[in-house]
Amino acid sequence: MNGKYKAIWLNEEGYLEVLDQRALPHEKKIVTLKNVAENIEAIKDMTIRGAGVIGCVAAFGVYQAARECNGDLECIKKHAANIRKSRPTAVNLMWAVDRMLEKLSTSSNILEDAKKEAIAISDEDALRSQKIGEYGCDIIEEILKSKNKKRINILTHCNAGWLAILDEGSALAPIYEAKKRGIDVHVWVDETRPRNQGANLTSWELSEGGVEHTIIADNTGGHLMQHGLVDMVITGADRVTRGGDVANKIGTYLKALAAHDNGVPFYVALPASTFDFSIIDGVKEIEIEERSEDEVHFMRGITSEGEVSEVRITPKDTKALNIGFDVTPNRLITGLITERGVCDASQKAIEKTFELEQ
Amino acid sequence: MNGKYKAIWLNEEGYLEVLDQRALPHEKKIVTLKNVAENIEAIKDMTIRGAGVIGCVAAFGVYQAARECNGDLECIKKHAANIRKSRPTAVNLMWAVDRMLEKLSTSSNILEDAKKEAIAISDEDALRSQKIGEYGCDIIEEILKSKNKKRINILTHCNAGWLAILDEGSALAPIYEAKKRGIDVHVWVDETRPRNQGANLTSWELSEGGVEHTIIADNTGGHLMQHGLVDMVITGADRVTRGGDVANKIGTYLKALAAHDNGVPFYVALPASTFDFSIIDGVKEIEIEERSEDEVHFMRGITSEGEVSEVRITPKDTKALNIGFDVTPNRLITGLITERGVCDASQKAIEKTFELEQ
Repeated sequence: MNGKYKAIWLNEEGYLEVLDQRALPHEKKIVTLKNVAENIEAIKDMTIRGAGVIGCVAAFGVYQAARECNGDLECIKKHAANIRKSRPTAVNLMWAVDRMLEKLSTSSNILEDAKKEAIAISDEDALRSQKIGEYGCDIIEEILKSKNKKRINILTHCNAGWLAILDEGSALAPIYEAKKRGIDVHVWVDETRPRNQGANLTSWELSEGGVEHTIIADNTGGHLMQHGLVDMVITGADRVTRGGDVANKIGTYLKALAAHDNGVPFYVALPASTFDFSIIDGVKEIEIEERSEDEVHFMRGITSEGEVSEVRITPKDTKALNIGFDVTPNRLITGLITERGVCDASQKAIEKTFELEQ
Repeated sequence: MNGKYKAIWLNEEGYLEVLDQRALPHEKKIVTLKNVAENIEAIKDMTIRGAGVIGCVAAFGVYQAARECNGDLECIKKHAANIRKSRPTAVNLMWAVDRMLEKLSTSSNILEDAKKEAIAISDEDALRSQKIGEYGCDIIEEILKSKNKKRINILTHCNAGWLAILDEGSALAPIYEAKKRGIDVHVWVDETRPRNQGANLTSWELSEGGVEHTIIADNTGGHLMQHGLVDMVITGADRVTRGGDVANKIGTYLKALAAHDNGVPFYVALPASTFDFSIIDGVKEIEIEERSEDEVHFMRGITSEGEVSEVRITPKDTKALNIGFDVTPNRLITGLITERGVCDASQKAIEKTFELEQ
């Protein structure tokens, strides 16, 4: 490819342009990152977000550093150290920066190689995403066949689309592939409180892609499943253990319980880089991030005058707790859709698929 | 009592004054209902809400009609017919109006009896609520004893407090009673999207009552239960079948699933009037109300300038689905807390407790 993706792209002057995800869905703003500081700021202030996209912006940040440093490796390393600090818990970011530096440390044409490597990292993400889409869509076709139906209703939670992972996403990749294959697909989009990634980002992405969808309050999925209105659930993941437990956006576990109670297949889509093979029991071992309670108290939207504005929706002085993620135990998961194919959410199947020592 | 309750009260001129629940929690407005038309409007426009409170306001509406009609029964009946139409699906409203008319049809002192009967209806609600509180609090004490703990964490969904049922509520009555008994109680308040009754009403009520509480996104309860942070769940109910299935605010079913998965006791508190003894299977037989999608799209809150304002939180032109209630199957419910005591959510136990023919 040529460094052009849906969420980010290199412009003709070699600067990265990115869609400002904080402004979506009310405004479509494009931001040009003109120096390393602006690359770092875009990661920090969540102009861009999503595990995959953060890694790619970091890689292009190192390329930008190479340009600013005129290819001087020591200078690049200093910038790289700052890029690393922009989101300290983002595993993909560390990995991408390390890979860039390793490549450049033995390069005889640093500028050229920095560009190539950042594009390679992003292209590889896009290829994995495409594979996930194809494997996931095969499951969609199987479900339709087994039910003898023409139209599939898929429920998703949070945003795991191309705004998060180049260039089709993880959870949404099978849906985009279904659209390509001419399948009649409708998506139930969980609003995803408190940050509303479903209502703000997933619904916007699906609109852009011409995919039919309906936003629902997070409370609604169980009722829909009881009444046969959901054929499958696909979510993304933030971290998956060697045992197949899935940490994902808070509320995922509740949907998995409802799917299990109603015999609805529940799939998690992820690139292999999302696995943490060092741990088994997700509920016990994954540390869950507590975020600012203001995300519960305040809501951003657009006024009747068309202005973006924030209102407080809770009583003044009340306390809120904002837990970012929860863990869905492997027993509730039908399968994991990865670029290597679909595997059971079990230690045995994961070790086999990813050729780990048992 | 004397016609004075927390959500509504007769003033010295014999007019009903009510707390405007649409303005809470950002403003505490009191509205005086000066004629039958204003009584009707208050029910219609949801100035007041909640099964119990609607019935009581309707009863006082008939009293107001008696005053306007100077005791003329035919005139009162005409007003009563209009009161009935204000919320056609509110069972308590019909029941209260019928009871008022029956009383007045044989009365020799219509004005006096209308006032007495409206107060009697409200007093009886308050007494039932108190009983529910006592029975429910006995369970709280048992749980604390069995766990050898001093502090109880209770999760609730939506608002089933004194804003909904005179004069302590249903789900919140055991919590208020616990406070009275000196128990250290903390409440997890589900925000309750899309209308935010938890964040707007329950948290406000609990603040007024000095009960410690924390607002959480509806997605959060499952995680809290996985980590032992919820000792019991208590919700209210909109309709309970003879089999013990519970229709309540959308999302209740998801919390019941999580409670079941984690061994957390799940109780539903309700006055006996909430039972519908004519049906057994809630999922199949209870018709669920679909409400305006605007409740999903728009969010009311207070701006940084202190003004109450509404913002659209979803992309323009997207579609939403707004389902008002869901049904929790009896197998997920630990017990039903009623004014007659606590009974299992099973047909047999319900028929026995309420002396129904089997």
